[in-house]
Amino acid sequence: MAVGVHNFPDFPELSGVRIGVVEAGIKKQSRKDLVLFEFDASANVAGVFTKNAFCAAPVHISKTHLAFINGRGGKAYFLINTGNANAGTGKQGFDDALQCCESLAQQVGCEQQRILPFSTGVIGEKLPVDKICNALTELTKSLSVNNWADAAAGIMTTDTRPKGATTTVSYGGHSITINGISKGAGMIKPNMATMLCFVATDASIPQPLLKRLVSEIADCSFNRITIDGDTSTNDACMLVASGASLAPEIDESHEDFQNFRRSLQQVFLDLSHAIVRDGEGATKFVTIRVERARSQQEALDVGYTIAHSPLVKTALFASDPNWGRILAALGRAPIVDFDLSLVSISLGDVMIVEGGGRAESYTEERGQTVMDQEEITIIVNLDRGASVETIWTTDLSHDYVTINAEYRT
Amino acid sequence: MAVGVHNFPDFPELSGVRIGVVEAGIKKQSRKDLVLFEFDASANVAGVFTKNAFCAAPVHISKTHLAFINGRGGKAYFLINTGNANAGTGKQGFDDALQCCESLAQQVGCEQQRILPFSTGVIGEKLPVDKICNALTELTKSLSVNNWADAAAGIMTTDTRPKGATTTVSYGGHSITINGISKGAGMIKPNMATMLCFVATDASIPQPLLKRLVSEIADCSFNRITIDGDTSTNDACMLVASGASLAPEIDESHEDFQNFRRSLQQVFLDLSHAIVRDGEGATKFVTIRVERARSQQEALDVGYTIAHSPLVKTALFASDPNWGRILAALGRAPIVDFDLSLVSISLGDVMIVEGGGRAESYTEERGQTVMDQEEITIIVNLDRGASVETIWTTDLSHDYVTINAEYRT
Repeated sequence: MAVGVHNFPDFPELSGVRIGVVEAGIKKQSRKDLVLFEFDASANVAGVFTKNAFCAAPVHISKTHLAFINGRGGKAYFLINTGNANAGTGKQGFDDALQCCESLAQQVGCEQQRILPFSTGVIGEKLPVDKICNALTELTKSLSVNNWADAAAGIMTTDTRPKGATTTVSYGGHSITINGISKGAGMIKPNMATMLCFVATDASIPQPLLKRLVSEIADCSFNRITIDGDTSTNDACMLVASGASLAPEIDESHEDFQNFRRSLQQVFLDLSHAIVRDGEGATKFVTIRVERARSQQEALDVGYTIAHSPLVKTALFASDPNWGRILAALGRAPIVDFDLSLVSISLGDVMIVEGGGRAESYTEERGQTVMDQEEITIIVNLDRGASVETIWTTDLSHDYVTINAEYRT
Repeated sequence: MAVGVHNFPDFPELSGVRIGVVEAGIKKQSRKDLVLFEFDASANVAGVFTKNAFCAAPVHISKTHLAFINGRGGKAYFLINTGNANAGTGKQGFDDALQCCESLAQQVGCEQQRILPFSTGVIGEKLPVDKICNALTELTKSLSVNNWADAAAGIMTTDTRPKGATTTVSYGGHSITINGISKGAGMIKPNMATMLCFVATDASIPQPLLKRLVSEIADCSFNRITIDGDTSTNDACMLVASGASLAPEIDESHEDFQNFRRSLQQVFLDLSHAIVRDGEGATKFVTIRVERARSQQEALDVGYTIAHSPLVKTALFASDPNWGRILAALGRAPIVDFDLSLVSISLGDVMIVEGGGRAESYTEERGQTVMDQEEITIIVNLDRGASVETIWTTDLSHDYVTINAEYRT
C-alpha cells in the first residue's frame, strides 16, 4: 500500500558514477541487498547524517572516512547493505563495519578510508560480515553506469516500492544530469538527514559549496517529513558531484546557478515525498502548512504537533473531518501567549476554524469532500508573525500497526 | 479490551456528598450520561485543569466558578455530561454551558456560580442544552449518597469499564473516607490534570491545603500517565472535602497527616492507573522508570520519548523484545552531552543494554519472557544525576486505530 503513483524514472547514464548490486543473503533470500557506488577520482562527496545520539557504527565511520577523502582526490565508494542496521551493536559493530571496508579496499586497491559504509534494517543484531565479504567479488564485477534502478530496489527495507528521481538541467550551455534514489518507510522523523538517500550529479561542484547545498536542501526536504516521529539511528543523505560533465564548475554567481539549485532541490523533494507516500501503512499524503508564526521554530513545533498526533492521524485514516482533533493538537503545541481568537485552520480550500471556533461557512459535507481525497493539505494560520513552514506526513492505519508488530517475525 | 482486572469497589457512604445520575439522551440512547454532585455548605473544593490552549468552555467556567465559591460557604454542585465536550464551540459554547448552570441554579435555589460544569465527548459539536435542561428535575430527584457506581458509569466515553477507588483512614482517632471516580481512555497526556476525576472525602481540609494536595498529588499520578500523547481540551481533576466526618481538621503537623496523604495519593494512583489499563486498545500496562537523570525534566523527557514512540508501542503490542527501538527512541530524546556508554536499560529484571550495546547476559528468550507479560516495566538508568521519575503508558494496537477511526461513526 502506498499513496498515489510514484513514477519511477528511466535513469540516464551519469558519467563518473558506477553502481554494483548483488544478493548477499543478509536477511532474506532471493533479494538484492548489497549495493556499491564507485565514484571517479574527480568526484566531490558531501552528506548529512542522523542526529540520533545512538547513531549506528557505520554512521560514525562514514563521517570519519568522509573527512579523510575530502580534498584528497582519488576514487571513493559507498558500500550499502539492507537487512541489518548494525546499530546498538557496540564495539563489535565498529569492528564489523571496518572489516567490510578493509575487505573491499583490498579488492579494489585503495585505502579503507575511501569506503563509506551504510547499513539499514533491524537494530541490535550482529552484522553478517562473512555474507557481505563473500559477495564483494561479484559486487565489484557488477559495477555499471546502468544500475540505478537495481540499486533503488537493493536498499529497500519495509518500502513497498523503489524510489528514484532524475532530471537534467542546462548550465553554461551544457547539460547536467542529477540522479537520486532514497529508501525509508518507517522510523521517519529525520533530524538532519533522512533514512538513506544517494544523489549524484555529473556537475563539477567545489567541496564547500557541495557541503552547503546538501545541508540546505536536505533541511527543506528530508528534514520536513515525518511518518511516525521516530528518528532512525542510521539516517544519511549523500550528494556526490562527479565532475564528469562538460559544463563549467558550478558557481553561485553564474546566471544558471539558481536554476541548477532548483533542479537539485526538486530531486530532493521528489525523493523525500516518495518516502512519505510509501510511509508504513500510509493511505494519505498530508501537507501541513503553518503560516504567520512568530518564528521558524514555532511554525515547526505547531506543524509537528499536528503531524504526530495519533488522534489526527487516525481521523485522517478514517477520512473523518474531525477537525476538533486538529484544534486539540494545536492547543497543546508549545506556544507562548497563544491568542486563539486569531487562529484559522483550513482543510484544502475549506475554512474550518475561525476565531477559535467553527467557521460560519463550514459544513460537514464540505469537510468530508476534502478528507475523502488521498492528498490533503492542512493550513494553520496563527496570524502573529511572518514565518511559514511546510511539512509532509501520513495517516496512521491498521497496516502501520501490522507492519511494525510483525517486522521481526 | 483492557489490561488486567480493575477491582471496582463497593463504595461506602460519604457524608456531605450526594450524587444524581440520569439518562438525558445526549448522544446515545439508553445510557446514563448526566451526573450531578451536590456538596454540603461545609465543603471545600479544589481542582486542577487542562493546560490545552484550546480548553473547552466548561473548563473556563468551572475555573471562574471555583474562584467564586472558595471561602464563601454554601452548597456547591458539579454538573457533568458525557457525549459532548462543548469544546471548539466558541462563544456559543460559553452561552450553552452557562444556560445549563442557570437552569440548575433556579431548580436548586442558589447562585449559578455555585454550579461547576464539566463536559466530555466529541469536540466541536453544539451542546444539546435542551436535553440537559429537560433532565434536571429528574436529576435532582435522584440525588443520593449511594450513587458512586452509577456516576462512574455515567461519565464514561470510550472507556470499557467504570473506574473507582475508595479507602478509609484513621485520623485523630476517627475514620475518614475517601471515594473517587475517573474516566478516560484516549487523548490522554494530561498536562496538569487528566480527563475527568472526582475525588471526595468527608475529612475537613482547609482550602489552601486542599488546593496544594490536589495539585501535588495529581502531579505524581494523573500527570505521569500517557496513552497517546494527546492532551484533552477538557481535563479536570477535582478534590472535595465535605468536612462531615468527626475527625479533626487535617493539619500538616498532625501525627496522622502523612498516613492520610498516602491514602489520598493511593486513591489518585489507582484512578490514574485504571485509565491507563483501560487505554484505547490497550493490551499492556507499561511502567517506565527513568533513574539517575540530571533533572526531573530530563527524566520526564526520556520517559515520554519512549512512551510516545509508535515503534516502541507497536513492539510492546507484538510482545516483541525489539529493544533496539527503545534505544533509538532514547537516542532522539532531548538530552545534552549524552554519554551512551553510561546507559543501561532493563526490561523487568532482565538487563538488555549496557554501555551502549547489548548486555552480555541478554538472550532473546529472557527478553521474550518479560514481553509476554501483560504488565511490563522498562527501566532506563542514565547514570548522570540523582533524579528519578516514573510514568505509565500502554501499547499501540489495532484496536486503538479501530476505536479512533470509528469514534464519530
